[in-house]
Amino acid sequence: MYFNYSFRAEADIALIGLAVMGQNLILNMADNGFTVCAYNRTTEKVDQFLANEAKGKSVVGAHSIAEMVGKLKSPRRIILLVKAGSAVDDFIGQLVPHLDPGDIIIDGGNSEYTDTQRRCDELQAKGLLFVGSGVSGGEEGARFGPSLMPGGHPEAWPHIKDIFQTIAAKADGEPCCDWVGDGGAGHYVKMVHNGIEYGDMQLICEAYHLLRDTLGLTHDEMADIFVDWNRSELDSFLIEITADILRYKDSDGEPLVTKIRDSAGQKGTGKWTAIAALDYGVPVTLIGESVFARCLSSLKDERVSASQVLAGPAVEKFTGDRRQFIDDIRKALYASKIVSYAQGFMLLREAAQQFSWHLNYGAIALMWRGGCIIRSAFLGNIKQAFTSQPELANLLVDRYFADEVHKCQDGWRRTVAGAALRGVPTPCFATALAFFDGYRSPVLPANLIQAQRDYFGAHTYERLDEPGKWVHTNWTGKGGNVSASSYNA
Amino acid sequence: MYFNYSFRAEADIALIGLAVMGQNLILNMADNGFTVCAYNRTTEKVDQFLANEAKGKSVVGAHSIAEMVGKLKSPRRIILLVKAGSAVDDFIGQLVPHLDPGDIIIDGGNSEYTDTQRRCDELQAKGLLFVGSGVSGGEEGARFGPSLMPGGHPEAWPHIKDIFQTIAAKADGEPCCDWVGDGGAGHYVKMVHNGIEYGDMQLICEAYHLLRDTLGLTHDEMADIFVDWNRSELDSFLIEITADILRYKDSDGEPLVTKIRDSAGQKGTGKWTAIAALDYGVPVTLIGESVFARCLSSLKDERVSASQVLAGPAVEKFTGDRRQFIDDIRKALYASKIVSYAQGFMLLREAAQQFSWHLNYGAIALMWRGGCIIRSAFLGNIKQAFTSQPELANLLVDRYFADEVHKCQDGWRRTVAGAALRGVPTPCFATALAFFDGYRSPVLPANLIQAQRDYFGAHTYERLDEPGKWVHTNWTGKGGNVSASSYNA
Repeated sequence: MYFNYSFRAEADIALIGLAVMGQNLILNMADNGFTVCAYNRTTEKVDQFLANEAKGKSVVGAHSIAEMVGKLKSPRRIILLVKAGSAVDDFIGQLVPHLDPGDIIIDGGNSEYTDTQRRCDELQAKGLLFVGSGVSGGEEGARFGPSLMPGGHPEAWPHIKDIFQTIAAKADGEPCCDWVGDGGAGHYVKMVHNGIEYGDMQLICEAYHLLRDTLGLTHDEMADIFVDWNRSELDSFLIEITADILRYKDSDGEPLVTKIRDSAGQKGTGKWTAIAALDYGVPVTLIGESVFARCLSSLKDERVSASQVLAGPAVEKFTGDRRQFIDDIRKALYASKIVSYAQGFMLLREAAQQFSWHLNYGAIALMWRGGCIIRSAFLGNIKQAFTSQPELANLLVDRYFADEVHKCQDGWRRTVAGAALRGVPTPCFATALAFFDGYRSPVLPANLIQAQRDYFGAHTYERLDEPGKWVHTNWTGKGGNVSASSYNA
Repeated sequence: MYFNYSFRAEADIALIGLAVMGQNLILNMADNGFTVCAYNRTTEKVDQFLANEAKGKSVVGAHSIAEMVGKLKSPRRIILLVKAGSAVDDFIGQLVPHLDPGDIIIDGGNSEYTDTQRRCDELQAKGLLFVGSGVSGGEEGARFGPSLMPGGHPEAWPHIKDIFQTIAAKADGEPCCDWVGDGGAGHYVKMVHNGIEYGDMQLICEAYHLLRDTLGLTHDEMADIFVDWNRSELDSFLIEITADILRYKDSDGEPLVTKIRDSAGQKGTGKWTAIAALDYGVPVTLIGESVFARCLSSLKDERVSASQVLAGPAVEKFTGDRRQFIDDIRKALYASKIVSYAQGFMLLREAAQQFSWHLNYGAIALMWRGGCIIRSAFLGNIKQAFTSQPELANLLVDRYFADEVHKCQDGWRRTVAGAALRGVPTPCFATALAFFDGYRSPVLPANLIQAQRDYFGAHTYERLDEPGKWVHTNWTGKGGNVSASSYNA
């Protein structure tokens, strides 16, 4: 320790970064009996916060890193809630000279898990403990109970467990927070959570699109449908707020959502999930499509131009049994969602293998069960599946979920087929169905790909009747062992 | 120059790396009148090559880098055909001390374009010229005319143009080789080429899957269909070899392709293309799905297990007009292929903006028109589209391609719908159709995503009637400006 402090070590934990998320997390901790030291680079924010939102609560302020550190009990616990990227490294660099071995730095931002892994290594060398924690639930979650996904140095967990589990959301009486694993595991799980969130939101959009354009329902009628669906297996935060949104009127009495530009933004975590899927070779198709759907939505001007040139099918409206069609859409949404979560857990499992993480899939489902954006009743069933079979190969082959998909499949197929015929894009409903049909296929046509690769590149292929034996065929009968073609462009 | 050479500077160009591709490229250059110096790390290969394949041709050998450099005319031109990655950097490191300013190193391997960009910068600082060139067409192409996609330091082009354009494949009398652009442009274009190749192969697999499983055709019948399709707009190398493959019999008289394990391998360039698409925010959905389809195919054991648990639809066979269904599949394949190339050129255009490359899209189509794996008649139409309208926003809005898609769309829609109803996965047919329907939609449902993001994260949204103005709505009517929800998990 290089500094001499004259402050009273009174605070249980400090938090750096007083944007709304940070402020709310401090208030949440204070409400739960912890004394929190608040610090911000622009120190006026500290004073404003103490004079207003934090007034009368167990919150103290600091105007410098040194002051903040001096006010902390040992081992010191410091949460960073700053912009992911270099700001995290900057603050770590500022903190390190003030800390003692065993002190704990917690990054609660949306950092890339590879950065978290690197920071773990760097701080370990300095005798400090580092935790990268996913924090989900938006501002409301931060204030009254977020989902927390901490990972990093496991020696840190006993020192932060009480605070984390106390302030976290509760589902079925249990905290939506548990230790995830070493290194970047916490941020990895948060990343997959965000990817799944992208998927859930796109699935809802596809249902909305079909209800709006092929059935021509009003927004109030659609709001009623989502209220109804929220009483089914689809019971979830996102379905609930969709009903609110569809019903919300602008000042002229029109649904506000129709006034919003249909170009979706993104902050990168969905993209990271899809890239991780590609890097690890896991077919997480639904999240991939949902990220691309946002990309396509952002090409608004191009789409408007293209709509003048490209025609759709002759018949775009639905003319059959409307009630059944609405229920078919619900089934498509539910079955696709099951596929998306199955893919997400495949991606978790692959990372666990790559990084030797011992992920508890049931605990992860419970962490997402409450507090966060994807919270839902459905995650309770996932927790159950993994709790009863921790080695479950895939969510789709769990008895409960297999039955659920079987019950949905006719309606799901009719929805995808109907959308294709009527010109409504449903990339996620469709890719989920393609995945389901591929996953349940003992034989796929990839034998032809292997033959093609052997034909033009002599890549060799494996024979079914001689597993492990790779052979090359001279497909054209010309030349020696070199692949050949008579094609001349 | 640090070395004293006593060799005769007789060779026009040198090539390092005598695997089959390298050997064939040397023989191609020699056949076209160039004198080539061959070098390989394991020098026995040099002697073997000179004594056999290269015997009697204008090929000289070298047993060291110094000897090789000494045998080259000035400016020296050296092609590396070694494994992408550190081997390229190793050889560059070995070459640099022997070279003079203005000498040219050409990397003809499958390097990542970011590496090529870096090597350009590094070698520029040393006064050397660097070219990263895509080389496509497999071993056969290398021997008798590959597609070549060079990029890097433009000062190098006048010195290699004659050799490159002479040995390249010809299409409509023009060489399938032109200067692509600065830095990593050549390898970037090669990467997108490979991604498109993944897509083309997967599209053929989906057609094969439907013909095989829903119509129950024999492999000879399917071979006839591909021969037939090869006389249509689908005329291409991959369609042609598919016919050959389907007809090829194993020693027991059964089609050999049915004996091949249905797990597709990959070498990474398809994955890189999909990652680039995600990184630049371009919806290249078809290549993404084709990479994921290979990933899913590799989970053979999991699929076999899942097939015991998961049931498909009640009716899997097609019972209607078989001729029409076959023609519908052809239309699905053709229209999907148009979408895939449209997406690929979108990705080229985005990279051109990011890196300030002045890509000539017509010239790129011509480079792919012959010599390479995706060579086809179709690329002639693409060349035409970009030649007549260099600023074409998207291939889909070109009059010719718009008409082609319009002619195909009913059959394409029936194919996607039929596959969904019958349980055959067609992820690429389906994603192409979803993209087409999304791209021609002036209004997508992404307004709902923006509303959701504003509801739970106060991300704000843009109003259609006030472009550029971003606002936040307090959707629940509770609290202040902070988003909120009454949901309790």
